[in-house]
Amino acid sequence: MKASLDELKRRLLEVNDLQMATAVLRWDQTTYMPPGGAEARGRQMATLSRLAHEKFTDQEIGKLLDRLEPETAKLPFDSDEAGLVRATRREYDQAARVPAAFISELNEHCAHSYQVWTEARPANDFARVRPLLEKTLEMSREYAGYFPGSESPADPLIDLSDYGMKASDVRRVFGELRTRLVPIVRAITAKPPADDSCLHQHAPEAQQLAFGLEIIRRFGYDFTRGRQDKTHHPFMTKFSLGDVRITTRVREDDVTDALFSTLHESGHAMYEQGIDRSYEGSPLASGTSSGVHESQSRLWENVVGRSRGFWNYAYPELQRAFPGPLSKVPLDTFYRAINKVQRSLIRTDADEVTYNLHVMLRFDIEVDLLEGRLAIRDLPEAWRARFESDLGLAVPDDRDGVLQDVHWYSGLIGGAFQGYTLGNVLGAQFYAAACRAHPDIPERIAKGEFATLHTWLRENVYRHGAKFTAAELVQRATGGPMSIEPYLGYLWDKYQPLYDLEGVAAAR
Amino acid sequence: MKASLDELKRRLLEVNDLQMATAVLRWDQTTYMPPGGAEARGRQMATLSRLAHEKFTDQEIGKLLDRLEPETAKLPFDSDEAGLVRATRREYDQAARVPAAFISELNEHCAHSYQVWTEARPANDFARVRPLLEKTLEMSREYAGYFPGSESPADPLIDLSDYGMKASDVRRVFGELRTRLVPIVRAITAKPPADDSCLHQHAPEAQQLAFGLEIIRRFGYDFTRGRQDKTHHPFMTKFSLGDVRITTRVREDDVTDALFSTLHESGHAMYEQGIDRSYEGSPLASGTSSGVHESQSRLWENVVGRSRGFWNYAYPELQRAFPGPLSKVPLDTFYRAINKVQRSLIRTDADEVTYNLHVMLRFDIEVDLLEGRLAIRDLPEAWRARFESDLGLAVPDDRDGVLQDVHWYSGLIGGAFQGYTLGNVLGAQFYAAACRAHPDIPERIAKGEFATLHTWLRENVYRHGAKFTAAELVQRATGGPMSIEPYLGYLWDKYQPLYDLEGVAAAR
Repeated sequence: MKASLDELKRRLLEVNDLQMATAVLRWDQTTYMPPGGAEARGRQMATLSRLAHEKFTDQEIGKLLDRLEPETAKLPFDSDEAGLVRATRREYDQAARVPAAFISELNEHCAHSYQVWTEARPANDFARVRPLLEKTLEMSREYAGYFPGSESPADPLIDLSDYGMKASDVRRVFGELRTRLVPIVRAITAKPPADDSCLHQHAPEAQQLAFGLEIIRRFGYDFTRGRQDKTHHPFMTKFSLGDVRITTRVREDDVTDALFSTLHESGHAMYEQGIDRSYEGSPLASGTSSGVHESQSRLWENVVGRSRGFWNYAYPELQRAFPGPLSKVPLDTFYRAINKVQRSLIRTDADEVTYNLHVMLRFDIEVDLLEGRLAIRDLPEAWRARFESDLGLAVPDDRDGVLQDVHWYSGLIGGAFQGYTLGNVLGAQFYAAACRAHPDIPERIAKGEFATLHTWLRENVYRHGAKFTAAELVQRATGGPMSIEPYLGYLWDKYQPLYDLEGVAAAR
Repeated sequence: MKASLDELKRRLLEVNDLQMATAVLRWDQTTYMPPGGAEARGRQMATLSRLAHEKFTDQEIGKLLDRLEPETAKLPFDSDEAGLVRATRREYDQAARVPAAFISELNEHCAHSYQVWTEARPANDFARVRPLLEKTLEMSREYAGYFPGSESPADPLIDLSDYGMKASDVRRVFGELRTRLVPIVRAITAKPPADDSCLHQHAPEAQQLAFGLEIIRRFGYDFTRGRQDKTHHPFMTKFSLGDVRITTRVREDDVTDALFSTLHESGHAMYEQGIDRSYEGSPLASGTSSGVHESQSRLWENVVGRSRGFWNYAYPELQRAFPGPLSKVPLDTFYRAINKVQRSLIRTDADEVTYNLHVMLRFDIEVDLLEGRLAIRDLPEAWRARFESDLGLAVPDDRDGVLQDVHWYSGLIGGAFQGYTLGNVLGAQFYAAACRAHPDIPERIAKGEFATLHTWLRENVYRHGAKFTAAELVQRATGGPMSIEPYLGYLWDKYQPLYDLEGVAAAR
C-alpha cells in the first residue's frame, strides 16, 4: 500500500503544482498585470489547466485508487490515508468522466462569454449574451449527461461545489428556510429603515486598508502566510498552505465596505490557512465545499464582524482611525447602520437577512433551466417576475437584473449559488456549536479576544480540509446534520431588538 | 513544410507557456510572496521547469527540426522561418543533452541555496553557503560534462548566455581590454576624486520612483506592456511580449541610485518590448545573448543616462523634483558626481570604467573553479587576493566580498558574468553605429528626444529577437565584428575632459 500511496501522492503533487501556478497567474491577472499581458495570459492559464486536467485524469491514477480503496477501507474512517483516497476518488470520478475535448471547448466558450458579458452588462444588452447563454445551458446539460442516473441534471453540477447535496435536498432546506425567513423580512421592512448615512462619508484608502488588516490579524489571519492586494472584485486565493492571499477593493466614500469585504475574505483564508500542513499539495488541502467555505467568510464577516459585542470593543478604534466621519456618531447609530436590512436589487450589496432571497431565486431558476421548465429567452422575464414576488421590487433593467452576476456568464449554469445560503446556515450552526463548547466566546469577542473561537474552528473545521464531506464534517463538528434552527435563532436574537420586532411565530 | 512548422510552433508555444508561468512565479517570489510561500514556490517552479524541459526535449521536436532544416536552409538567411529553426536547434541541442532529473535537482538546489544565501550574506557567513556552493560547482561541472569535446568546461556554460563564445575568446577580448583600460583607471584614480556628496542626500521614495518612471516613458518603455515593482535586487522579466516588467529598489539617502537602476532595467525591457510581435511564444521572442542584452541596459543607463547632453536636458527637472538636495548644486557638479570613478568593493555600485575589473576577476575565478585550479574552500581568499591586485583594495569581509553577488548562489557557476563587460563593449559599438546613421542623435538626446536612437535600436537590434546570434547581429547592425575600440573611444572622450587626463597612449 505504501508504494501505491506514495505514487498517488507524487502524481497529485504535480497536478497541484500546476493548479497552484494557474492560481498565481490568475491573481496577477487581476492585481498587477498590465493590459498588454491579457492575451498571452489567457492562453498560459488555459495551457496549465489543460495539463493539470490531463495529468489528473491519467488512467494510472484510477488504477492506483482501485488498488488503494480496499486497503484504506480497512483503516479508521478519519485516517488521513483513507480520507485522501476518498477525496481523490470523488474528484477523479468527476474529472475523468468528462472528455478533455469538452473541457477545452467549455473553457474557450466561457472565456468568450465572459468577455462579451463585460460589455453587455454595462450596455444593458441581454440579447447579446443570449445565444452564448443558450450554449452554456446546452453544455451544462451535456456536462450533467456524463453522470447518468442523477435525480436531476442539476445534481452533478451541485456536486462540483457542494458535493453530496442533491437539488431536492437544497430545495427542501431552502423551502423550510423561506417559510420562516419571509415573515422576518416582512416584519423588519414594515419598520422605519435604519439610517446608514454615517457610513457614506469620506474615508482615506490607506487608513481603511490598515484598519482592516489590523482586525484580521487579531482574528488570526497569518500574514507570514498571506497578504492583501487590491482588485476590482475581492477574492481569496491559495498558492500553497503557506501562501493564502486575499484581495479587496476600496471605496473612499464608504467607511466600511472594504472592511467587511476584508473580514469576509479573511474567513475564507483562515479556513485554508488552518488546514493540516501535512495535506499540502493533495486534494485534502482545500476547503471541503462551497457551503462550508462560505460559512467561514460569513461567520467572521457577519456573526462576529457585525455583532454588537465586536463593535463594543472595536468601535473606539474605528473612531480614532476615522475621526472626521465617526467621532460624533454613537456606537448605537453605527451598529444599526452596518446591520441595515432592506430589499435591494443587487445580491452582493444585500444584507445578511435578505441575501438568502437573492440566492433562492437564482437556485430555483438554475434548476428550472436545467430541468427544461424555463428557456433562456424567457429568463429576463422570469427574473423580473420572481424578483417582484420574492423581494417586492420592480427590476428596472437587465443590467441590475439578470445580468448582474458573473457566474452564469463565466461558467456552467447549476450549482453556482446555493453555497452562499448554505454558508449562512452553516456559519450560524458552527458558531452555535463553538459557543456550546466555550460559552464565553461572545464575552471574549467583546474584549477583542478571538483565539477561543478561532481555535475551536481550526480544530473542528479547518484542519480537516477536504478529508470529510460537508455532511460528515457538520455531523462531527456540531453533533448533528445541517439545521436551519441556529441561523434563524441567530437572526431573531439579533434583529428582534434592532428593529423592535414583535413575536413572529415562524421565527423561533 | 507548413505542417511541420505549425506543429513545431504549437509545441514551442506550450513550452513557452510553461516557461512564462515559471517567470510569473519567480517575479511574485521576489516582489510580493509572503515568507510562508517559499517552500511550495520552489517546488512549483521546479515542476513547471521540469515539464517545460520534458516537453522541449521531446524527441518529436528533434525530428521536426531534422525535417525542417534542409527546407529552411533554402530560404534566405534572415527569413523568420529559417531563424526560428536555427534558434530552436541551438536551444534544443543545449537542452536535450541534459537529463530532466538533473534540471529538477538543479532547480531545487538553487532555490535552497538562494534561500540560505539571503541569510548568510547579511550574517557574513561564508561557511554556511560553502557546502551548497561546492554542490553548485559539482553540478556545474556535471552540466559541462554533457557537452564533451569542449575546449573548456566553462564553454557550455558560457553558451547558455553568450552563445558561440568560448572561454578562450572571452579571455582574449578581456585581455586586450584590460591592457588598454588599466592605464585609464590609473590615470583617473591618480587625480583628486570627484565629490559626489550632492547625491547622498535625503530623497523621498515616491518622488524617486515617479521621476524614474517618467524618464523611461520618454525613452520609449511602454507601460501598457509593463510595470515596475520593488525588489531587493532590480531585474527585468518577461511574461509575454505584451508584459515585460522591471523592478527596482530605493535608497532614500541616495538621489540617483533607483533612477540609474530604473534606466538600466528599462534598457533590457525596451529590447524585449521591441521584438517582432509575430515571434510571440517562440524561442525567437527573446534577447539573443547576455552581452547584447547588457549592451542595451548599459547604453540607456550610461551612454545616454550619464551623458552631459542628457542632463543638460533633464537636470532642471531633477532639481524641481528634489529641490532640497539639488537646487543649489550646479549641473557641472552633479555631472561629475554621477560619473565619479573610484576603486570600490561592490560590483553593482561600480562606475562604468572600473566595473569591467569586477567582471574580469569573476570571470577568471569562474574558469579557475571549473577548470580545477581553485577550490571553493579557497574562494574567499582567492577573491581577496585578486581584489587587492586588480583593484588595490583590501576586502574587509565576505559580505562585501565573495558573498556580494546572487549569481553563484542561485544558479550555475560559469558564464554568469562575462555578459556585463561584453555589454559595455557592445553598447558603445551599437551607439556609435546609430550615430553614424543619425549624427544628430547626441543633439536630440540633449533636447529630450530619444525616438531616433530608440527607433534605430528597434530596427537594427530589438526586433530581431534571437533570430541572429550575437555575432551575426553585431555584424549586421554595425558592419563589423565585436570591437573594443568604440568603447575605449567613448570612455576616453568622456573621461578625458572630466578628469583632465593627459594622453594615455593605450587608450586611443
